[in-house]
Amino acid sequence: MSCLKWGRRQLNNRKYEKVKQYNQMNTNSFFTHLACSECGNMFDKNTVQTFCPDCIKPLSAIYAIPSGGLDKSILLHRPKTMWRYREMLPVENDNNIVTLGEGFTPLLKMENLGRKLGLVNLFLKDESSNPTSSFKARGLSMAVSKAKEYGISAVAIPTAGNAGSAMSAYAAKANMGAHVFMPKMTPSVFKLDCTYFGAKVTIIEGSIRDCAKALAAQNIGKTVNGQVVRPWFDVSTLKEPYRLEGKKTMGYEIAEQLDWQLPDVIIYPAGGGTGLIGIWKAFQEMMLLGWITHIPTRMVCVQAQGCSPIVDAFERGLEEALPVDKPQETIANGLRVPAPFGDKWMLKVLKDSHGTAIRISDKEMLEGTHEMAHTEGVFVAPEGAATWIAFKKLLADGWILSHQSVVLLNTGSAYKYIENLEAFV
Amino acid sequence: MSCLKWGRRQLNNRKYEKVKQYNQMNTNSFFTHLACSECGNMFDKNTVQTFCPDCIKPLSAIYAIPSGGLDKSILLHRPKTMWRYREMLPVENDNNIVTLGEGFTPLLKMENLGRKLGLVNLFLKDESSNPTSSFKARGLSMAVSKAKEYGISAVAIPTAGNAGSAMSAYAAKANMGAHVFMPKMTPSVFKLDCTYFGAKVTIIEGSIRDCAKALAAQNIGKTVNGQVVRPWFDVSTLKEPYRLEGKKTMGYEIAEQLDWQLPDVIIYPAGGGTGLIGIWKAFQEMMLLGWITHIPTRMVCVQAQGCSPIVDAFERGLEEALPVDKPQETIANGLRVPAPFGDKWMLKVLKDSHGTAIRISDKEMLEGTHEMAHTEGVFVAPEGAATWIAFKKLLADGWILSHQSVVLLNTGSAYKYIENLEAFV
Repeated sequence: MSCLKWGRRQLNNRKYEKVKQYNQMNTNSFFTHLACSECGNMFDKNTVQTFCPDCIKPLSAIYAIPSGGLDKSILLHRPKTMWRYREMLPVENDNNIVTLGEGFTPLLKMENLGRKLGLVNLFLKDESSNPTSSFKARGLSMAVSKAKEYGISAVAIPTAGNAGSAMSAYAAKANMGAHVFMPKMTPSVFKLDCTYFGAKVTIIEGSIRDCAKALAAQNIGKTVNGQVVRPWFDVSTLKEPYRLEGKKTMGYEIAEQLDWQLPDVIIYPAGGGTGLIGIWKAFQEMMLLGWITHIPTRMVCVQAQGCSPIVDAFERGLEEALPVDKPQETIANGLRVPAPFGDKWMLKVLKDSHGTAIRISDKEMLEGTHEMAHTEGVFVAPEGAATWIAFKKLLADGWILSHQSVVLLNTGSAYKYIENLEAFV
Repeated sequence: MSCLKWGRRQLNNRKYEKVKQYNQMNTNSFFTHLACSECGNMFDKNTVQTFCPDCIKPLSAIYAIPSGGLDKSILLHRPKTMWRYREMLPVENDNNIVTLGEGFTPLLKMENLGRKLGLVNLFLKDESSNPTSSFKARGLSMAVSKAKEYGISAVAIPTAGNAGSAMSAYAAKANMGAHVFMPKMTPSVFKLDCTYFGAKVTIIEGSIRDCAKALAAQNIGKTVNGQVVRPWFDVSTLKEPYRLEGKKTMGYEIAEQLDWQLPDVIIYPAGGGTGLIGIWKAFQEMMLLGWITHIPTRMVCVQAQGCSPIVDAFERGLEEALPVDKPQETIANGLRVPAPFGDKWMLKVLKDSHGTAIRISDKEMLEGTHEMAHTEGVFVAPEGAATWIAFKKLLADGWILSHQSVVLLNTGSAYKYIENLEAFV
């Protein structure tokens, strides 16, 4: 890992120009370097990076956006995938893009649900149409593409399910080895699809945190020419900087699909929180691009009652979350993340956006799944149903007003949670 | 049902003009009337139609395409759904469109699989990203939209699974009653999602043919003002004319995604055959629109070894198929259609396109699912895997040449067939 030790503000224009020239030889990406989300120190994009070794915090991809912005008419002829925002994505060479058609998912108007509560502008960003049926496809398409760009031959992940499916699918497409570590409570469909994709699946007693430990224990490094080389590249949430760049495209799409008028509220079910951070990052970038003129959006973080480290910290006014010692099982497997690595960044997004955080029970999620299915014809993951329940509570509390526009985020398809839905029916 | 008894060729221009003027008051659809696929007799679009009562054959929607065609640049600003081909769809009033974001699914290049066999232009039209995870969404979005346009309050369907899911979802969105009849062998996920969508599900011993009989037996009509009125509108494959109009959009999309150069071969897994017929219909329409200049495509019909009425008829050179008396069970539930209502039309498409028909076994489909998953990262329904196996056979036989472009059609997501895939692993 090579930290350039440039302060973000110290980077002079001449250096930017040089990086930009280098870029322009290879790609139309504006990507220049990575910076620590905590200390701002810069990291070279041309070598494999993970997280800031000083702060033990995530890195953020930085782009050299032209001072005049970028004309958004470029989008007119772009593919209907997340790759349409090409300039703002970190892959250098188009040949390294590993794609299965991810992104540009529908933003559905929830007229029937909205009508029940007197709201006209209620939307669902429905991520279930992505490859492997979840929003994880975005992050893993990007991470595997960058891994390919770096010549990496095997990737590994601790996962609550969907991220493992997505990593395995993209690794298959890229001819890479794939190693997946999954909690025992994960629905069996996730083990089956990863196996079909050719991944090696290891089942672990405990939560995703225990999976991460097991992965690290098996991924033993050897010292080669003074550098530690491990057999697999670990693409754990935010310990690898590019999944975030895939996830942020949800923010770009929400803006484009609402004709560049951001909604008043986005309600997001956060486990590792990459999407929450990513959407907010996209909004900042779009301001610089000149694609939006202001950001009215308040971000809401929804978590499961039995595992809500971010809600706990938010309620106590903390800047960092405390790990949940005994995370309870939940039908929303993706929300059982007891110690999210991006905790501080997530809490900062909630603060900066004047947002809030809320807990939802399994019983409520199940009721929400039912209600959304028979009212709107959408069959959402329990995580998606949690956002609908959260919305109703926030509307009842007066935190959301009925004239406001609200986007709920459904992270994936209920078809991967059939075991959970049957068990609780 | 009101049959206008105009021969197709007898329709004079003045009448066309009148219909067109009527249309233009309400919509930009070019839809004018329905015609029997067998005798050509015309049927009024302003009343509810089913099939030709004389021929007992499907109806086909006819459009008044301007003689100069239509500039395809209109597509540039259209939504990324099947509704982008608005002029060539039968819904009159946009307010009646019942949408969950169906269509414009990815056309993925199968580089890894192609490379294995020396083929450069091998594609997968991946329908798994549709609402309720299958291509059935297209047909049922259209059928339910038209039902809404006609003021129908309840719909019913005999189904091998996916069509039931799709009908139930769109009926929920449209606030319509939904009644689903499903064979006992259908994976339980289909019963569960229909129930979540609020449909009444009836499980039947036997095949989809027995389901159709049970539906008819329960859907007892009453005579009101000399007309038979039934409680539910039956949207059985091709006994309702508009599902076909949804399915045909696959043909439009394949053309658009290949930059208006049709492939040499399309391999299609056909149960009821609406997609096979629909894609071919789209190609004819696009010739009239001036969107394509010729149709080089040979259409291939793939069926399951234990239930292959169309392949049987094709091999014997028949114009009609004989019902399969004892259809065997198959992991490709969608292919277990012993007596497809559109048999004659399907066989005509194979003949007109110089196509062929082929049987695939369950064992081969399962191997194909595995191979596609770990080679390309796509997790396809057994029906989709059957097209890959069929492709390999046709290439080995010399029926397809390695310089040709080939599109395989995956009808849905493997996530809805987990029971079948587990049982055979």
